[in-house]
Amino acid sequence: METSLLVVTCCRSLRVTGAGTMFHFWGRYEAGGMENPGYCAGSFDHLHHPSDDDDDDDEMVDIAGATLDFSSTDDVPPLSTGTNGGYEENSSNSSSSSSSSRAAGMNGNGPKLVDPLEDPLPGVGTYEDFNTIDWVREKSKDRDRHREITNKSRQSTVALLHSVSDAFSGWLLMLLVGLMSGALAGGIDIAAHWLTDMKGGVCLIGFWFNHEHCCWTSNETTFQERDRCPQWQSWAELITGTSEGAFAYIVNYLMYIFWALLFAFLAVTLVRAFAPYACGSGIPEIKTILSGFIIRGYLGKWTLIIKTITLVLAVSSGLSLGKEGPLVHVACCCANILCHLFTKYRKNEAKRREVLSAAAAVGVSVAFGAPIGGVLFSLEEVSYYFPLKTLWRSFFAALVAAFTLRSINPFGNSRLVLFYVEFHAPWHLVELAPFILLGIFGGLWGALFIRANIAWCRRRKTTRLGHYPVIEVLVVAALTAVVAYPNSYTRMSGAELISELFNDCSLLDSSQLCGYKQPTNTSETGAGNSLADRPAGEGLYTALWQLALALVFKMLITVITFGMKVPSGLFIPSMAVGAIAGRLLGVGMEQLAYYNHDWFIFKGWCSPGADCITPGLYAMVGAAACLGGVTRMTVSLVVIMFELTGGLEYIVPLMAATMTSKWVADAFGREGIYEAHIRLNGYPFLEPKEEFEHSSLAVDVMRPRRVDPALAVLTQDGMTIGEVETLVESTHYSGFPVVVSQESQRLVGFVLRRDLLISIDNARKRQDGVVSASRVVFTEHSPSQPPDAPPPLRLRGIMDLSPFTVTDHTPMDITVDIFRKLGLRQCLVTHNGRLLGIITKKDILKHMAQIANRDPDSILFN
Amino acid sequence: METSLLVVTCCRSLRVTGAGTMFHFWGRYEAGGMENPGYCAGSFDHLHHPSDDDDDDDEMVDIAGATLDFSSTDDVPPLSTGTNGGYEENSSNSSSSSSSSRAAGMNGNGPKLVDPLEDPLPGVGTYEDFNTIDWVREKSKDRDRHREITNKSRQSTVALLHSVSDAFSGWLLMLLVGLMSGALAGGIDIAAHWLTDMKGGVCLIGFWFNHEHCCWTSNETTFQERDRCPQWQSWAELITGTSEGAFAYIVNYLMYIFWALLFAFLAVTLVRAFAPYACGSGIPEIKTILSGFIIRGYLGKWTLIIKTITLVLAVSSGLSLGKEGPLVHVACCCANILCHLFTKYRKNEAKRREVLSAAAAVGVSVAFGAPIGGVLFSLEEVSYYFPLKTLWRSFFAALVAAFTLRSINPFGNSRLVLFYVEFHAPWHLVELAPFILLGIFGGLWGALFIRANIAWCRRRKTTRLGHYPVIEVLVVAALTAVVAYPNSYTRMSGAELISELFNDCSLLDSSQLCGYKQPTNTSETGAGNSLADRPAGEGLYTALWQLALALVFKMLITVITFGMKVPSGLFIPSMAVGAIAGRLLGVGMEQLAYYNHDWFIFKGWCSPGADCITPGLYAMVGAAACLGGVTRMTVSLVVIMFELTGGLEYIVPLMAATMTSKWVADAFGREGIYEAHIRLNGYPFLEPKEEFEHSSLAVDVMRPRRVDPALAVLTQDGMTIGEVETLVESTHYSGFPVVVSQESQRLVGFVLRRDLLISIDNARKRQDGVVSASRVVFTEHSPSQPPDAPPPLRLRGIMDLSPFTVTDHTPMDITVDIFRKLGLRQCLVTHNGRLLGIITKKDILKHMAQIANRDPDSILFN
Repeated sequence: METSLLVVTCCRSLRVTGAGTMFHFWGRYEAGGMENPGYCAGSFDHLHHPSDDDDDDDEMVDIAGATLDFSSTDDVPPLSTGTNGGYEENSSNSSSSSSSSRAAGMNGNGPKLVDPLEDPLPGVGTYEDFNTIDWVREKSKDRDRHREITNKSRQSTVALLHSVSDAFSGWLLMLLVGLMSGALAGGIDIAAHWLTDMKGGVCLIGFWFNHEHCCWTSNETTFQERDRCPQWQSWAELITGTSEGAFAYIVNYLMYIFWALLFAFLAVTLVRAFAPYACGSGIPEIKTILSGFIIRGYLGKWTLIIKTITLVLAVSSGLSLGKEGPLVHVACCCANILCHLFTKYRKNEAKRREVLSAAAAVGVSVAFGAPIGGVLFSLEEVSYYFPLKTLWRSFFAALVAAFTLRSINPFGNSRLVLFYVEFHAPWHLVELAPFILLGIFGGLWGALFIRANIAWCRRRKTTRLGHYPVIEVLVVAALTAVVAYPNSYTRMSGAELISELFNDCSLLDSSQLCGYKQPTNTSETGAGNSLADRPAGEGLYTALWQLALALVFKMLITVITFGMKVPSGLFIPSMAVGAIAGRLLGVGMEQLAYYNHDWFIFKGWCSPGADCITPGLYAMVGAAACLGGVTRMTVSLVVIMFELTGGLEYIVPLMAATMTSKWVADAFGREGIYEAHIRLNGYPFLEPKEEFEHSSLAVDVMRPRRVDPALAVLTQDGMTIGEVETLVESTHYSGFPVVVSQESQRLVGFVLRRDLLISIDNARKRQDGVVSASRVVFTEHSPSQPPDAPPPLRLRGIMDLSPFTVTDHTPMDITVDIFRKLGLRQCLVTHNGRLLGIITKKDILKHMAQIANRDPDSILFN
Repeated sequence: METSLLVVTCCRSLRVTGAGTMFHFWGRYEAGGMENPGYCAGSFDHLHHPSDDDDDDDEMVDIAGATLDFSSTDDVPPLSTGTNGGYEENSSNSSSSSSSSRAAGMNGNGPKLVDPLEDPLPGVGTYEDFNTIDWVREKSKDRDRHREITNKSRQSTVALLHSVSDAFSGWLLMLLVGLMSGALAGGIDIAAHWLTDMKGGVCLIGFWFNHEHCCWTSNETTFQERDRCPQWQSWAELITGTSEGAFAYIVNYLMYIFWALLFAFLAVTLVRAFAPYACGSGIPEIKTILSGFIIRGYLGKWTLIIKTITLVLAVSSGLSLGKEGPLVHVACCCANILCHLFTKYRKNEAKRREVLSAAAAVGVSVAFGAPIGGVLFSLEEVSYYFPLKTLWRSFFAALVAAFTLRSINPFGNSRLVLFYVEFHAPWHLVELAPFILLGIFGGLWGALFIRANIAWCRRRKTTRLGHYPVIEVLVVAALTAVVAYPNSYTRMSGAELISELFNDCSLLDSSQLCGYKQPTNTSETGAGNSLADRPAGEGLYTALWQLALALVFKMLITVITFGMKVPSGLFIPSMAVGAIAGRLLGVGMEQLAYYNHDWFIFKGWCSPGADCITPGLYAMVGAAACLGGVTRMTVSLVVIMFELTGGLEYIVPLMAATMTSKWVADAFGREGIYEAHIRLNGYPFLEPKEEFEHSSLAVDVMRPRRVDPALAVLTQDGMTIGEVETLVESTHYSGFPVVVSQESQRLVGFVLRRDLLISIDNARKRQDGVVSASRVVFTEHSPSQPPDAPPPLRLRGIMDLSPFTVTDHTPMDITVDIFRKLGLRQCLVTHNGRLLGIITKKDILKHMAQIANRDPDSILFN
């Protein structure tokens, strides 16, 4: 039986045997067992390190752990079973009667005849770790539950109230997710601000003040002077007593490096010790989870706590990373944890994913202060199943979160958005050319970044580099700090840099970027606006040089930073690269226009004295282009940027650049960075955006192949328990079709391995007369048996009576469409009514990998 | 055979026999044949009235007409077949060789083995009018086409260029749709503005100027005086020479009524004579079309032309209707017509619907100047299948349209939005109570309006009222004009009214609504802002009375107006009702706060002299609430409103009101006005938003029922042409399953009636030796036959080898989900591998109607 083919359950023994067997499982994946394989960017060792072991009995941590007692939602209305706690007992008590209730179902009484999960055996209908859920089944279960509640609600007032509270629990949950995520994001902002300033100095009136707060009460008049208020002392001042001179500079430099290393070390150590899942941006994994995959603990409380703390540390350490992506992960953790408060969401994987989709929107909403952009981000980039109800709720949650964040007011300016921009000048049609140029740059950078980053991450996985994550982080942090400090544009945090680059120069602006020559009174502008139309001065040229150096540095360092074992987002570094490039081009255009007013391209709209080119807008367009190239976001990106400026005016430049960037980047490879990481990690993710272009048929993809032996099937009444157990044990497929007989191969149903094993086990333990010679019957009525035969074991209750089938001639594009839209785990293949084979999600992914000339074994999970 | 059951093709003979058979078909629907049944709001007579007959050979008019030569896209790449014109000839020439090409396909060479549409017979693979398309098939065809182009593109540069142009044709199409819709919307705005002013007077320097343009050059200083510029003369001035006095008033009154009646008469006559489909808002039908239904001519050029003209007339006539809904229809017509420029979209119903979805977004974008809101409207309210690619393209098209409209500048203020609002004061948490009150009002009004309007429309359909559409329109127009003229708030157009209600009072505002008592200098506000905190004056009280009367009038007249035989949108009337109610409440709150500063609820935030309550905001919230109650829009409504104000600040009030409104309205019935009209008209629309809550199984819904005779099936090689023809002619089902043999009932495939008839017809005409005794074979290889038997007719090419199947035990909620998500027409039901029955979309809708205690025969179409 070893030879027949079905769904392969690699991870079957994971939960039962624990960490001991993990290396066995991960062996193939890690390309040669090693003592200390990397645990981020695609490896999942150290999942069960000692300090994390208590997770196993903590239902708050597991995604799927809590579904073990799932069956209570099916037939027994949640109201009458009461709380979760007493249920285990309940189900064990009722297990002896379960076969009779199953028998009742089998006799065809009542509408619940065929619910395969009617049997309240604990464990039946739940999922293993690293397995794919069955969306159809989950949603159907939820509808059953809802129907039950609706029917009850007609009978009593209490039940009616319960029905109403059930209907509103989704909104309540959204409110809580919004509040919690907003509060956390505010906390992260404040803490990161404080720690970042800590690298430069300390506040004498209280070390817990950041630079800005420290100088709040200072009565200096200009912004520049206020920044140098006496309450705030740089480390050099504190140590050497002077803030000038080479020595002071060196002291500050060293302290900067020291703090950066300290923060980076703390971050990586905490991640390693407490929550290996907390590293990276988390978006690839969240995408995979939302598509229906189970990764236990990925959204648990330890991950939340550690990610929140280490995110602050990582951002403060000055590494080239952002907090926007990880905020999505943080929001999803919040949502997952809060889901446990509501039975409806705790017990249904599909419903929970609706909440997680909304949480992704919340994450972006708090990251950028852009609720609508966040919702569209979730819709476009992250979510798999996004019904309209979720759209509306996401929007609600995103708004709540944005307002919570604003009331915390971490930026001290009571503005919702991260980078508040206000431009005054309109743009001209001619400027579309440089905008499209920025789009091309963004696309090229995106494609290049993805290739380089993936190559680096693959190297990290396959070579000894991956064994020393702490050293890697420290080296990169040291390198970043050493190179970044001398250049003021790299020394400041990414968000500050972007903010400065986006800003238009105002009259009083003291920034180097606004170092234009002051117009003399004799200039031709006359009484004109002195902001407009100025030649670049000394300061600006210096700034341009520094920016060019910063650009090269950021581009290089981001490639090796993303994917390290600390929380790291990509939004800010990508945007920084684009903003620098855009600002450079913008200033270039500005000077070109200044010195060439009479060129035909500038004529008419860029007359002397008019404020015709806004370098800040170029920076913004560049940022959008680069972020678009890396992530391949489109609408959501434009809307996020639109929410930053609030003007419809600038949508067209943003759109032109984003569109160009996406097209250029797509020409080099259609995957965004998140999809590339998903593929690198071998997750079973069926990209919903891309069309399946190959013209193969279901028969080409299904198992068994022509050369393989026949499919392992169960017959509906012809096998004994012993035979079934032999079949199950000699294979590792996660499910078996049930047929009428081996000869006819007419399909009756499908039974999952897990359910089968649990049921047989349970029957052997609790049901009298069940022995290896007992018949296993899946039919409605028991077949006639000799009188001395042991009583048959009736398992129709655990069989899925409505397995999905396609014919062998179904084109694979249609099959893939069905898998995507319905969220299937597997689909049976028939020919003229006879069962021929099976196609699983993994088979499809392997087939797609094969078509793309990749290693089909790169798909690791079911 | 009459007795067996399959898909019923009511409309089969429509296209062939023309108007003659239409009454036969519509007889049941019109509940008793009558001479002049209404043609809007649910009836489709007069479709083929004489002046429209030339549509039949005009491919621009038909939705589906152009797909007759569909097959050219399948196997022959579009490049080599060249233009559309020469194709008919081509296909008839190749029809004799078609059986050989089919035979080649049958032998299993090449990957195209099973394409059911490989056969290039004209007509095979197309749809009848009033039938549902098969999304899976259409999308699969498009993928085939795309694959073909991609494969070709590797071979030559020309093909590569073609591939690139094919990829960009979607964007080009979007651009064109945006430009055309934007231009049309601009034209409609200008024309409606002009004609509306025409009711009041005429411009002496040129009758084509509207009031505002006419007085443009006038050198009066204040706005009020400028409005009375001498160039613009009211009809009384022109006729009687005086603009004052009772006589002048009466002359103006009469002229107002005269013009209103004239415009209304022209509108209804044009609609009746040239394009009956142009009436109503069009959104219910567009929703149905987007869900995969075919209504030929609904989006054709006549509809476009007539709808554009009559929309202007209807709006100008002063009827209580808006142009926003019909603009969606206009944009969809543009998109449909422009689709004919691109083979890719002309020949594929699914691809075309993607474009139409984007066009719906364009319509709202130009209606409100809200591109993002438009896209979300399309996503939330109108579209059925909305892939991410469409999201991005919709956004692009919506932006192009918005900018086209702005460059036309119909409002003369270079603003994108219809109602530009700028509020200064923030809102306070306490104000949420009145906002929620407005939400409740909106919900109640929405539920009431839907009930009343549907009852009225049903009465129109079933009584003699529907026989006199022209008289009905004239009576309503006269009534509206007579009642509306004396009240200045009903005399102005809906958009003007809303604009005035939304506006905050400024210091110089001369509107009655701002008729506050001027603060004396001795007031306690001291040097305060004279805008804030004022007691209501005489003018305001008059305005409030007039508004209250206007509210009652609008509420009543809108119920009977919507659904008349003129283009009529609901957005503006609904918003007007809400805005009036909101403004009333807002002024009430304001005065309450003024006289009760020291109440605990006003304490702290509403101190004397502060501008604490903005009545304009209340109007806006009320408008959103009422519109939400009527249409049940949520996110898109909030985003549209957000785009009007541009401030995130006011999203929370809007959201609270919209949410409340939806919940309240849903409590009275879950259908929005569009769904209600869809149901009234009996369209086969499977609501994607609502869950199927009943616990029935596929076996309960499928045909044949237990009492019915067996399913009409074909066998794969056991029937002669004569037998097949007898079977087909004795039934009216639109498709037949093919089984291995009558005994085994094992399913092989599914063949559509239309394809079968066309193929047999064609074979009889062109293939030698095909007689009634010829065997029809659907197998790959011909069965052995006696040597003297006529050659068999091989029809495997037209058979769908991958029909969808579910088992008899599949719960209906899952089945409905499959139908919705995959866009199926029908699905076969099996039991243990044997064919048992069939479920069509219509069966599902009938079943749902039955569950809801409605007449299952209310579903009229396939």
